[in-house]
Amino acid sequence: MNLPMTRGLLGSLLLSATLTMAQDGALEADAGLVRQPRQMILIIGDGMDDQQITIARNYLKGAAGQLLLDQMPLRSAVQIMTTEEKENGKPVYVADSANTATSMATGAVTSTGRISTSAGTDKDFTTIVELASAAGLRSGIVTTASVTDATAAAFATHISFRLCEDPDAMVNVSYKGIPMGNCSDDLKANGGKGSIAEQLVESPLDVILGGGGNHFTPTAEGETVTVVDLARRQGFQVVTNAAQLASTAPDKRLLGLFSGGTMPVRLQGEGGREAEAPRPSWLNQLHPYLGSVTLPAPMVCEPNPGFNAVPTLQQMTDAALHHLSRDNNRGFFLMVESASIDKQSHERKPCGSIGEVEQLEEALASALAFAQTHPHTLILVTADHSQAAQLVPYESLYAAFPIPIYTPGKIARIITPEGGKMAVNYATNNFKQEEHTGAAVPLFGNSEALGRIPSFIQQPQIFTITRDYLGL
Amino acid sequence: MNLPMTRGLLGSLLLSATLTMAQDGALEADAGLVRQPRQMILIIGDGMDDQQITIARNYLKGAAGQLLLDQMPLRSAVQIMTTEEKENGKPVYVADSANTATSMATGAVTSTGRISTSAGTDKDFTTIVELASAAGLRSGIVTTASVTDATAAAFATHISFRLCEDPDAMVNVSYKGIPMGNCSDDLKANGGKGSIAEQLVESPLDVILGGGGNHFTPTAEGETVTVVDLARRQGFQVVTNAAQLASTAPDKRLLGLFSGGTMPVRLQGEGGREAEAPRPSWLNQLHPYLGSVTLPAPMVCEPNPGFNAVPTLQQMTDAALHHLSRDNNRGFFLMVESASIDKQSHERKPCGSIGEVEQLEEALASALAFAQTHPHTLILVTADHSQAAQLVPYESLYAAFPIPIYTPGKIARIITPEGGKMAVNYATNNFKQEEHTGAAVPLFGNSEALGRIPSFIQQPQIFTITRDYLGL
Repeated sequence: MNLPMTRGLLGSLLLSATLTMAQDGALEADAGLVRQPRQMILIIGDGMDDQQITIARNYLKGAAGQLLLDQMPLRSAVQIMTTEEKENGKPVYVADSANTATSMATGAVTSTGRISTSAGTDKDFTTIVELASAAGLRSGIVTTASVTDATAAAFATHISFRLCEDPDAMVNVSYKGIPMGNCSDDLKANGGKGSIAEQLVESPLDVILGGGGNHFTPTAEGETVTVVDLARRQGFQVVTNAAQLASTAPDKRLLGLFSGGTMPVRLQGEGGREAEAPRPSWLNQLHPYLGSVTLPAPMVCEPNPGFNAVPTLQQMTDAALHHLSRDNNRGFFLMVESASIDKQSHERKPCGSIGEVEQLEEALASALAFAQTHPHTLILVTADHSQAAQLVPYESLYAAFPIPIYTPGKIARIITPEGGKMAVNYATNNFKQEEHTGAAVPLFGNSEALGRIPSFIQQPQIFTITRDYLGL
Repeated sequence: MNLPMTRGLLGSLLLSATLTMAQDGALEADAGLVRQPRQMILIIGDGMDDQQITIARNYLKGAAGQLLLDQMPLRSAVQIMTTEEKENGKPVYVADSANTATSMATGAVTSTGRISTSAGTDKDFTTIVELASAAGLRSGIVTTASVTDATAAAFATHISFRLCEDPDAMVNVSYKGIPMGNCSDDLKANGGKGSIAEQLVESPLDVILGGGGNHFTPTAEGETVTVVDLARRQGFQVVTNAAQLASTAPDKRLLGLFSGGTMPVRLQGEGGREAEAPRPSWLNQLHPYLGSVTLPAPMVCEPNPGFNAVPTLQQMTDAALHHLSRDNNRGFFLMVESASIDKQSHERKPCGSIGEVEQLEEALASALAFAQTHPHTLILVTADHSQAAQLVPYESLYAAFPIPIYTPGKIARIITPEGGKMAVNYATNNFKQEEHTGAAVPLFGNSEALGRIPSFIQQPQIFTITRDYLGL
């Protein structure tokens, strides 16, 4: 749409844009109108599929209640796109957070583990943060994970493997002695851009808030100073607790690192309990249809004591919005991630996931309040991929049969505040960490999203929607 | 909105109704306008949650493809509502098809197993079919299950327990000797309405199409004739195969019973295979992290030979639409169910579920074509509850770890037509039949649904939306 046009024509186009797909940011710019600042807040619930949302709704609001998510006027579904690790590879039907964040940040489809680089050929994809910066918009990332973790990283860095988070984790990356990957080609010495932490502090991001402090203490490659020193050299003020976050200099770039790795979550199972395996009686060990099985005792969710040591996702979101919007006539892009919906689901901790949906809701409340006073604000909430947790019957559908019927996996039985009994099953594998799943994920939008987003999209379209909205 | 009003005011109200919730059927009636016939087609994919839809999309259209469902302009989510079996009981978080169909058919919340009767007190709820009939509209039910199965039954019958499907299954209903339930109070001799089959043929339904012929061969209670004879006495023509269905008298009520029970499904796993348990090596039997595990061999889906013996869901839908719409200036309500998405998922047969999503898509195509020539046609597609199947990684996220990592449940590995590798996990229990799950389900609407349905509803609202649209 690069044609010159009159205001009259533009006016009717803008009107029709309320009912159809719009690139009206671009239109305004083309027509030479005074540009209103526009901002996009993309809130990602990592692993927040409809099972997770329903479990959280039942616990936080009751079966007849509504989350803030439920009150968003637009709902769509997002097909996740992943490919094999080779050029023109076949589709892969279950994703990880690295390749899904790459889709949202760059509009490209890649293979699992990759951060804004191409499958097979390892080329860099331009991210929305880079486009925003080039156009004079500010940008920020906020997450309850390490800021170097996959979701946040993909918006501003490029690397072949997600675990290359700091200068000490670039060559032959291993976990407890098990080889996991290698980013040798990404070393600066080899012409690369360095680790995720180094790339973050050298990126155009104005605000970086979350966990992951441990990834900023190693010495930067080719330097005598640490990565956090490098950040200060790049003009970042560095804060490490909520009090400092509340009194930052508003006109200076902001790096907040509030924990060594993933930030503590809000809720936990009673006494720290997670989902547990049913315990078979002696007879049941002889055959699964004999004897009896004892299911884990019911529990409630309780506050996680460690949570008070860090700012909430909402506090970080508020700080980011303040920094990004102050004296800004160009607009901004902000990504906010509630990361541990996924991480707690991997660990079979439904209370943990519920609390992190609650944190996401609070961040959304802040975003909606911001949009009240800043009308050109598009708010989208989505998940990057589905996850293992399943809301299952507290009493089996087949309870009338006189045999023990129970999950082959792990189960948590939770008493909800409304007095209901809720069972959550985890049974994707026999390992210490559950698998992701492949269902399309929900997408929610505020009123600004109406008419811009159809009822079904593919995940890379989140990038194009953002780019078009911001006129990039 | 029972105020008299001018046409001018009505016009502006109708205009605004395109953007807000509308009861314009009622408005038209109030204003004394000539009533246009209105029809509502409610298509239910039993157990068709976003896992099932994504699995079907990947297989039928490819990861980058779109189902017809994905092209529906409206998408919403539906919270399932269930209660304990007592008056004012606590919420129950996972449903069955009886209580969910009751919600959609009557607007009420009840307990699992109940067909349009109240939890604890066993009172009848008025169904949408009864309201439609009272207002002079026609109505029909079409299903690939027995027409006496829970979903279809709830739209036109009332009984305390879903398995009381025929006169021989009313007292001390058992399955292989195991007591399952009792409908003594529903016997006509005790002042009740009789079994589901008897109630169906005595209901105001104009069209009843599906399986379940076996439930119509017993002798009707208090009669010397069978239930199917009772149907003929009530004016039904009875057909039992596709050829007969294609040549029915268009002006006569229609009962089609195309199989004894559930109708055969379209697709099956190669050689009839279903999801299977991983096979452990000898070492792995000593400890789950030793040795190796052999996963089931990959397979494709293939046609089920038995499927050709029965009409398709689309053929039944076409016949129903023809019967319900012919010479009809009042409109109709039609419920179409693709039942075996759920039933095949219970049996861990992903190919079966995929084929039944395809059947639903074809029925939807017929509904959309009908709406092209009958503009006042609201089409909604939804599921009654979520189900067990999970799309999981073909290769574990943790494949780098040198230990066998595998599902504790059953898994099917499917090669898709685009050459991708798709794994489907079933692990909600150790029994022969999987459990339902509790996630909110998707709802899709045609253009007629835009502005009438918010982005999140509770399942009983499907009744009120239908009632308001049809002006009942």
